[in-house]
Amino acid sequence: MTISVAVSGASGYAGGEVLRLLAGHPDVTIGAITAHSNAGSRLGELQPHLHGLANRILEDTSVENLAGHDVVFLALPHGASAEIAAQLPEGTLVIDAGADHRLEDPAAWEKFYGSDHAGTWPYGLPELPGQREALKGAKRIAVPGCYPTSALLALTPGYANQLLQPDDVVIVSASGTSGAGKAAKVNLIGSEVMGSMSPYGVGGGHRHTPEIEQGLSNAAGEKVTVSFTPTLAPMSRGILSTATAKAKPGVTAAELRSAWAEAYDDEPFVHLLPEGQWPATKSVQGSNHAVMQLAFDEHSGRVIVTCAIDNLTKGTAGGAVQSMNIALGLDESAGLNVQGVAP
Amino acid sequence: MTISVAVSGASGYAGGEVLRLLAGHPDVTIGAITAHSNAGSRLGELQPHLHGLANRILEDTSVENLAGHDVVFLALPHGASAEIAAQLPEGTLVIDAGADHRLEDPAAWEKFYGSDHAGTWPYGLPELPGQREALKGAKRIAVPGCYPTSALLALTPGYANQLLQPDDVVIVSASGTSGAGKAAKVNLIGSEVMGSMSPYGVGGGHRHTPEIEQGLSNAAGEKVTVSFTPTLAPMSRGILSTATAKAKPGVTAAELRSAWAEAYDDEPFVHLLPEGQWPATKSVQGSNHAVMQLAFDEHSGRVIVTCAIDNLTKGTAGGAVQSMNIALGLDESAGLNVQGVAP
Amino acid sequence: MTISVAVSGASGYAGGEVLRLLAGHPDVTIGAITAHSNAGSRLGELQPHLHGLANRILEDTSVENLAGHDVVFLALPHGASAEIAAQLPEGTLVIDAGADHRLEDPAAWEKFYGSDHAGTWPYGLPELPGQREALKGAKRIAVPGCYPTSALLALTPGYANQLLQPDDVVIVSASGTSGAGKAAKVNLIGSEVMGSMSPYGVGGGHRHTPEIEQGLSNAAGEKVTVSFTPTLAPMSRGILSTATAKAKPGVTAAELRSAWAEAYDDEPFVHLLPEGQWPATKSVQGSNHAVMQLAFDEHSGRVIVTCAIDNLTKGTAGGAVQSMNIALGLDESAGLNVQGVAP
Amino acid sequence: MTISVAVSGASGYAGGEVLRLLAGHPDVTIGAITAHSNAGSRLGELQPHLHGLANRILEDTSVENLAGHDVVFLALPHGASAEIAAQLPEGTLVIDAGADHRLEDPAAWEKFYGSDHAGTWPYGLPELPGQREALKGAKRIAVPGCYPTSALLALTPGYANQLLQPDDVVIVSASGTSGAGKAAKVNLIGSEVMGSMSPYGVGGGHRHTPEIEQGLSNAAGEKVTVSFTPTLAPMSRGILSTATAKAKPGVTAAELRSAWAEAYDDEPFVHLLPEGQWPATKSVQGSNHAVMQLAFDEHSGRVIVTCAIDNLTKGTAGGAVQSMNIALGLDESAGLNVQGVAP
Repeated sequence: MTISVAVSGASGYAGGEVLRLLAGHPDVTIGAITAHSNAGSRLGELQPHLHGLANRILEDTSVENLAGHDVVFLALPHGASAEIAAQLPEGTLVIDAGADHRLEDPAAWEKFYGSDHAGTWPYGLPELPGQREALKGAKRIAVPGCYPTSALLALTPGYANQLLQPDDVVIVSASGTSGAGKAAKVNLIGSEVMGSMSPYGVGGGHRHTPEIEQGLSNAAGEKVTVSFTPTLAPMSRGILSTATAKAKPGVTAAELRSAWAEAYDDEPFVHLLPEGQWPATKSVQGSNHAVMQLAFDEHSGRVIVTCAIDNLTKGTAGGAVQSMNIALGLDESAGLNVQGVAP
Repeated sequence: MTISVAVSGASGYAGGEVLRLLAGHPDVTIGAITAHSNAGSRLGELQPHLHGLANRILEDTSVENLAGHDVVFLALPHGASAEIAAQLPEGTLVIDAGADHRLEDPAAWEKFYGSDHAGTWPYGLPELPGQREALKGAKRIAVPGCYPTSALLALTPGYANQLLQPDDVVIVSASGTSGAGKAAKVNLIGSEVMGSMSPYGVGGGHRHTPEIEQGLSNAAGEKVTVSFTPTLAPMSRGILSTATAKAKPGVTAAELRSAWAEAYDDEPFVHLLPEGQWPATKSVQGSNHAVMQLAFDEHSGRVIVTCAIDNLTKGTAGGAVQSMNIALGLDESAGLNVQGVAP
Repeated sequence: MTISVAVSGASGYAGGEVLRLLAGHPDVTIGAITAHSNAGSRLGELQPHLHGLANRILEDTSVENLAGHDVVFLALPHGASAEIAAQLPEGTLVIDAGADHRLEDPAAWEKFYGSDHAGTWPYGLPELPGQREALKGAKRIAVPGCYPTSALLALTPGYANQLLQPDDVVIVSASGTSGAGKAAKVNLIGSEVMGSMSPYGVGGGHRHTPEIEQGLSNAAGEKVTVSFTPTLAPMSRGILSTATAKAKPGVTAAELRSAWAEAYDDEPFVHLLPEGQWPATKSVQGSNHAVMQLAFDEHSGRVIVTCAIDNLTKGTAGGAVQSMNIALGLDESAGLNVQGVAP
Repeated sequence: MTISVAVSGASGYAGGEVLRLLAGHPDVTIGAITAHSNAGSRLGELQPHLHGLANRILEDTSVENLAGHDVVFLALPHGASAEIAAQLPEGTLVIDAGADHRLEDPAAWEKFYGSDHAGTWPYGLPELPGQREALKGAKRIAVPGCYPTSALLALTPGYANQLLQPDDVVIVSASGTSGAGKAAKVNLIGSEVMGSMSPYGVGGGHRHTPEIEQGLSNAAGEKVTVSFTPTLAPMSRGILSTATAKAKPGVTAAELRSAWAEAYDDEPFVHLLPEGQWPATKSVQGSNHAVMQLAFDEHSGRVIVTCAIDNLTKGTAGGAVQSMNIALGLDESAGLNVQGVAP
C-alpha cells in the first residue's frame, strides 16, 4: 500500500522537517509540495539538506493542489490552515501542524489568537492517556505545539495519577531558534542569538499557555493553572522544559517515580531516564524521542521534571507523522528516526 | 595612590576575569599572579586574551607569595580559600571569589559542602539593602555565587518591600559553560555542549540554593523557600535567571514596578529595562551590568523576573572588583566595563 | 540475508556514528559492541542519542569478542586497529575507520605516524576513479580520513582529467570539533571553542597531508604537492574544505565544470551544486552527502572548489557503511541517511 | 583637551563598536549619534549593550548633524559615506569605516563597486611600513576592510622584505557573522548559521580582493596576485585568515621568523605568537589586537601565516580609533581594549 501525501508550507522549518521524515517513510509517496511566495522554486534551493527531493518544484498552496491526496500536512500560519482545511474532502486525512485546531475552548482561542475559533480536532500526542485510541481512524489531527508537547509529557503522569497540586505549575522552557521560524528578523540573526539567552512572552502571554493548561486540566480532571516562561537559546533545535508542581501531601518520591515509569515504560518514543542521567536536547536531535528526568525536592515540596525534545521532530513533524501512522493503522514508528544525531 | 593586588587561581576563568578587569583599573598595580599546577608558566599560554600581562610568570599559590599586598583575590576551590585566608594578615583586604565565607548558617554549609564552616564574611552584593554600607572599610569580602547574584537581584525588591509570598519561589537559570570552570571533562567539551541544553543539580541539590534562600530570607525578614534548577546553555558566558514568586494578595502591577524601579534607578550597574524590552545575556557580555524585566501574570498570581548577567563579570570578578572599590573608598565603577561586548 | 556486524571503539564519536547508521540498516544485525575503558557500561550512558541500543552493554575490545561476525568495524586509535586486524579471520570483512591501512608508502607512514607500516588496504572512497570496482568483494577496507575525503572529492575530477597543475595545491579546511574526538582536553571544552576559530598542525605537519597527496597523485598520474591547513570551527560536526589549484594553460571554465559534472552526475552522494549555490556544512549534517561548488578565478589562474561533508558521516562512518555495502553487494545506499538534518 | 566626535551609522554593528570604544576613550566627548531609518529611537533599544549611552536619541544622518564636531566617524554603506564626506569641512577629521576611499585604482573601484571612484584617503593600518607616519595629522582616513586588515598584517612583512613570490598568494578567511552586518536576511538567521560553515564570493569576486592586492603590491614594489576565499563561520565576531605564499628561492625559516618579529616586536597591537602557540579568534575578542603564527612548509615551499583579529575591533572600529589617535597626536592606545574578553 502506498499512501499519497501532500505537504504545504514546504519552504519553512516545520514543512521541511515533515518532508525529511516522509522521504524516509516506507509507506508513503510524496505528492504535491507547496509553498506561498516560494512557489515555482526548486526545493533544493530552499531546503538544501533534502537531497532526495532537491529537484522537486514547489507548487502554489491551494486546495486544488492539495486535494486528491490521501493525506495532507498543513504547516501554515494560524488562520491559513483552518481556511484551507475547511475546503478539503472529508475523507482526506488532514494533519494541521499549526495552532488552529488545538484548543477546545473558543474563548481561550479568541483571547490568545484574536480570531474566530475553527473547532477542535483530535490532539496528536498519543502518549497522553487515551489519546492513542482517539487517533485511530481519525481524519483530522491537530499537532500539538512544541512547548506543550514537552510540558504535557513532563507533567501528565503526575496529574493523571492525582499526585500533583493543580494550582501552581511553573514551567520554564528553553527553545532553539528554529522554533521562531525561518523569518528574516534582525533579532533572530546569528550575530544576535549566538552566545545569548533571552526570554520572551513572559507573564502568561505566550499562546502555548492555554494549550498546556488544557492538557494538564484534562489529565487532572480539574482546572490546572500554569505560569509559563519561554526563552530562546543559542542553538538551532531542541526544547528543554523545566516543569515543576507541588506534590500533594503525603506523596512519596517512590510513588512519583513509579507513576512516570508506568506511563512511559512501554512507549517507543518517551523515556524516563535512569536515575542519575539528565536529559540533553542533543541526545534527541533529529529524532522523535522525548527524554526526561524526575526529581522530588522535599525541601520545597516541588516535583521537578526536566524534559528534552527536538522541537521540530517530536515537537512538530515527528509527532505529526507518528499520529498519521496511528490514524492510518501503520507501524507507529514508520519513517521516524529512532536514533538522534549527536554529537 | 596605587594599590597592590595579588590574584590567586589565575589560570582559571574566575581568576582570569579578575585579572582582565584589574589590568584596566586606574588605581591598581597587579603584584603576584599565582596558580597551583600551572605555577611557572607564562600567563600568555594560559590566558591568551590577557595581552597586557602575557609575559607575567605564574607563581605558586602560597601565603608567602600572596601576603604583602594591599588586596588579595582568592579564586580557588572551596576549602582552599578558607585555608589560605586564615593565614593572611588582618589588615589585608581579602576578597574570596569562592564559596567558603558566603553562608551564615554553619548547618547549611555542612549539609551542602560537607566540611566545617569557615565563618561568614560581608557579602559582596552592594545592591542589596544596606549592603553597600556594610562593605565600606571591610577587610574580608565574600563574593556571591553567580546564580545567587542573578536571583537575589531579581527578587530582593519584592521581598524587601513585602510584596511577595515567602513559600514558593521557583528559579530556573541557564548558565554559560564557563560557570562549570576550565575543567577537562568530556561532558563539557564543545562537541557535547554546542547545540544542547541540559539541567543538572535538579531537586534542591545545587550548592547555591541555601545562598539564594539566605539572601531572600534576609530581605523578607522571614524564611523564604526556593526551588532552584540550573541548566547549562550552549554559550561561554552569561546567566539568564527566570525567578518567580507569588504576589501577596492585593499587590498590583504598578506597586511591583515601582518597587523594582526604586531599588535600582540609582544603581550604576543594575537596571530594570523599559517595558517591552527583554534582557539578553549578550547585552551584558563582559560588563558588570545586570539587566532585568518584570512581569505580573495575574492569571497565575505570579511575579516573573527575568535577569541577565555575565556570570564571570557581575557574577564573579566584576562584583569582586566593585566590592573592592567600595571597601577601599574608590570610585565604585573604577576598572569595571560599563559597555558590554556585543554582538 | 542478515549480516552480523561488530563495532569496536563504540564509546567514541566514530564508533557511535557507525552504530547510528547500522541501527537503521535493513540488512544488518548488530552483534558485539566493544570499548576499552568503558567496557561493562550501558551504551545509553555513553551514547544517549542511540535510543534503540540504549540497553546494550559494552564488551571489551578483543579479538575473541570481535571475531565470529561477518563484518568488523574498527574505530580505534592508530596502531590499535592494525594489531587487532592482523588477528581477525581472513574471511571477515574488516573495515578500519582509523589510519593504519590508508597510506601506500611505508616511508610516508613512518614519517607521519612514527611506527611500522601495517600495509595498504583498498581505499573506501568509491567515488574516486575505479575505486568502486576495487571495493567489490574486498575483505579489508581502509576508510579515508575525514579531511582527505573532502579534499579528494573536491579536486580529483581536475586531476583525473589533466586540467590542474600538480605543483601548487592549497587546501584550507574548517572542521567541527568532533573531528578532534571525545577527549577530555581543556582546549576542546565548550567555553574555549564556542566563538572561536583556530588553526592547528599548520605547515605540512598534519597526518592527513600525505593521504591527500597520495590520492591526488594517483588521479593525476604524477606527483601532486599539497599545502594543507586544518582549522577548528565552533560547531560539532562538518568539514568545509576550500581546495585550490592552478589550472593548466588553456583550460576553460566550461571544461572544468563539465569534468566535475561528469564525475559526479551519477553519484548518489556527491554533488556539484547548481551555479550560484554554495555548499554549507549544515545541509549535509548527519547525511552521507558531499556537496561542492566550483569557481575559476581567471585573474589568479586558480580553480577553487569548496566542498562540505559531515566529518562523521561521509567523512567516517557513512563512507565506511557505503564501502561495506559495495563490498558485500548490497544496495550502496542501504542504511545511509539521504536527507541531512537541518536547520 | 576634549575632542568632540560624531558617529553615523550608529544602529549597525560597526557604528555600535565605534561607540563602545569611544565611550571608554579618555579624551573624547560623544556628540551626535546618527542613523538613517532608526533616527528618533533610543540607542538602548538598538544597542542594548551600550549601557552608558542607553538614553541617547539617534539623530538623522545629515551633514548638518555631523558637521561641527572635531571628528566624524562614517559607518555607512559604500556610496553613502563618500557623498556625506564630500560636504564635511576640510578641517574636520573624517574617518570612513566604509569602502569608498580605500582603493587607489579607479578602475579597480569601478570593477568591484560599479560606481565612480571617490578618491583615495590615507589608509588606517598604522602597522604597514610608513603608514603610521602617513596618518599623523591626517584629516581624512580610510579604515581598511576587515579581511584586508588580517591579510595584510599576515603577509606584509614577507613582501616588504622581499621574501615571498608575488604571483601565487592564496588566502582563505573565516569570518564571524557580524561581518555580514545587522541585516534581516534568512541566510543570516541563527537557525541557518549555527553549526554551519559556508563560503561566499568565491573565485575572486569579493570586493576585498583588490584591496588586499593593493596593500601587498605596495609592500612588494611589484604586482602581487591573490586568490581570496571568504567563508562564514558560526560565531558572532572574529576573523581567522590563513594566508599563504611561496617563499623566494633560498629563503630560510629563520629569515622568515625574524622578518615578522622585527615588523611587530614593537607594535602594541600586533603580535607574532611564541612558537607552538596558535592564534584563536577568541583571544582577541573585543580587543584591538591581531595575533598570528608563521609556519614554513618546506615540502610545498609555502609560507603559511594564520592571523586572528576581531573583525569589529581591529578589523573596523578599533583600527579606526587607533588611526584617530595617531592623526590627533593622542596616545595610540587611548580608548582601545588591551585585553580580550574570553572565554
